[in-house]
Amino acid sequence: MEAGQSGRVYLVGAGPGAADLLTLRAARLLARADIVFHDALVQPDVLALAPQARLVAVGKRSGRLSTAQQFINKQLVDAARQYGCVVRLKGGDPMLFGRAQEEIDALRQAGIALEIVPGISAAFGASAEVGQSMTRRGMSRSVLFLTPAVGKGEVPHAWADATKDVDTLVLYMAGRQARDIADGLIAAGIPAHRPAMLVENASLPHQRMWPTTVGGLPDAAAQLAEGPALILVGEVYAECLPQALALPRLRHAAA
Amino acid sequence: MEAGQSGRVYLVGAGPGAADLLTLRAARLLARADIVFHDALVQPDVLALAPQARLVAVGKRSGRLSTAQQFINKQLVDAARQYGCVVRLKGGDPMLFGRAQEEIDALRQAGIALEIVPGISAAFGASAEVGQSMTRRGMSRSVLFLTPAVGKGEVPHAWADATKDVDTLVLYMAGRQARDIADGLIAAGIPAHRPAMLVENASLPHQRMWPTTVGGLPDAAAQLAEGPALILVGEVYAECLPQALALPRLRHAAA
Repeated sequence: MEAGQSGRVYLVGAGPGAADLLTLRAARLLARADIVFHDALVQPDVLALAPQARLVAVGKRSGRLSTAQQFINKQLVDAARQYGCVVRLKGGDPMLFGRAQEEIDALRQAGIALEIVPGISAAFGASAEVGQSMTRRGMSRSVLFLTPAVGKGEVPHAWADATKDVDTLVLYMAGRQARDIADGLIAAGIPAHRPAMLVENASLPHQRMWPTTVGGLPDAAAQLAEGPALILVGEVYAECLPQALALPRLRHAAA
Repeated sequence: MEAGQSGRVYLVGAGPGAADLLTLRAARLLARADIVFHDALVQPDVLALAPQARLVAVGKRSGRLSTAQQFINKQLVDAARQYGCVVRLKGGDPMLFGRAQEEIDALRQAGIALEIVPGISAAFGASAEVGQSMTRRGMSRSVLFLTPAVGKGEVPHAWADATKDVDTLVLYMAGRQARDIADGLIAAGIPAHRPAMLVENASLPHQRMWPTTVGGLPDAAAQLAEGPALILVGEVYAECLPQALALPRLRHAAA
């Protein structure tokens, strides 16, 4: 780099897990990146798309080794002053539960050129595998993506107010909070027998899916391993349920 | 194809518009497709990824020439009996406002092998261009995707009930209904001064963006051309507003 110049930072979505679910644009950027900062959850197959780059793990993972956000921000700014092409790779899409804004703001404040490349968020990878559309004519025209706020300082179940009049729900970072989620949804008036799908490691070879109901989520979640998990809730998943759980089919709007 | 065998149908997300926002998997499938059925809105650059395939436009576009869903279903089943690799290409992601379920059900009923490949939905393409995360620590932890139900047989503003306790809203297929949308959101209790972004042709060279407020949406939408448009609403867009519209900044959670 010439004195006074800065490289460009690309904030890139790594998709749900499978390396071929990155976008063409993301893959081309990885192929020419000088340095890649990546979350802990980004798969080795994805990082292999940048064989020439220096790889720096900065990811946050609940309960594991993590890097403070301010230090990540500083690393990105420093790298842009040293390298031409800096990629910051985030699982899923950077703009949905990616905590992107802190990094965007830090780069802007430092006057670093920034581009954002979208990625496939986990719910889309999971929906493709489940084979059920999140929206459906005559049944679902609204889909809420949220993370439950559980624990210290939070009003119990207050996060669930937003779910009341929504057709389909997608809960991220949800596996370890399945009991609080089920309790919150039921407290918000969602029937315990509403169909739900628990999906772990969406799009990866070791993906697992549990068709269940809102009330059955805690039992399903007890079978989770350590992978990232999301929960889908809605009448659109009624067809995924085993016969023992399935209620009488809703009448679908004619095609 | 041998007698009694069927090909495989791939229901593939074409992303928001730019050809390099398809996934690697989608591009590889297009490169080996025998026939591609595509929506009217899928861009020529995207179709150019399948130079050897027979291309069949079947798209629906409000107010324009369209193909009845049942006829599309029949075409897909017939093609699977004739070709080895059939791609059904849908704008954005197939499982969010893609009307995929009718086609999935028809293919399953006909015993056709089906795979779904996710795509970048328009809101993610738009968010990357706007440069504001849909979620933000201390400000937004829930994002609602919906299409407003406006017109004959619909209770006015009933669709807006789902928006009440949600932090960030994304309204699809929204350009021509901006006045109804603004009225509905205000009737649901959302303040007219809440920041909003109107985005047309997200990710394409002729993309346009209007930073505005809920109350300003009808005026902004009056400037739309014919491209697909979506509306983003939420406090996270306050920083996008011109000074004249901006309210005093909300205090952001510390990084």
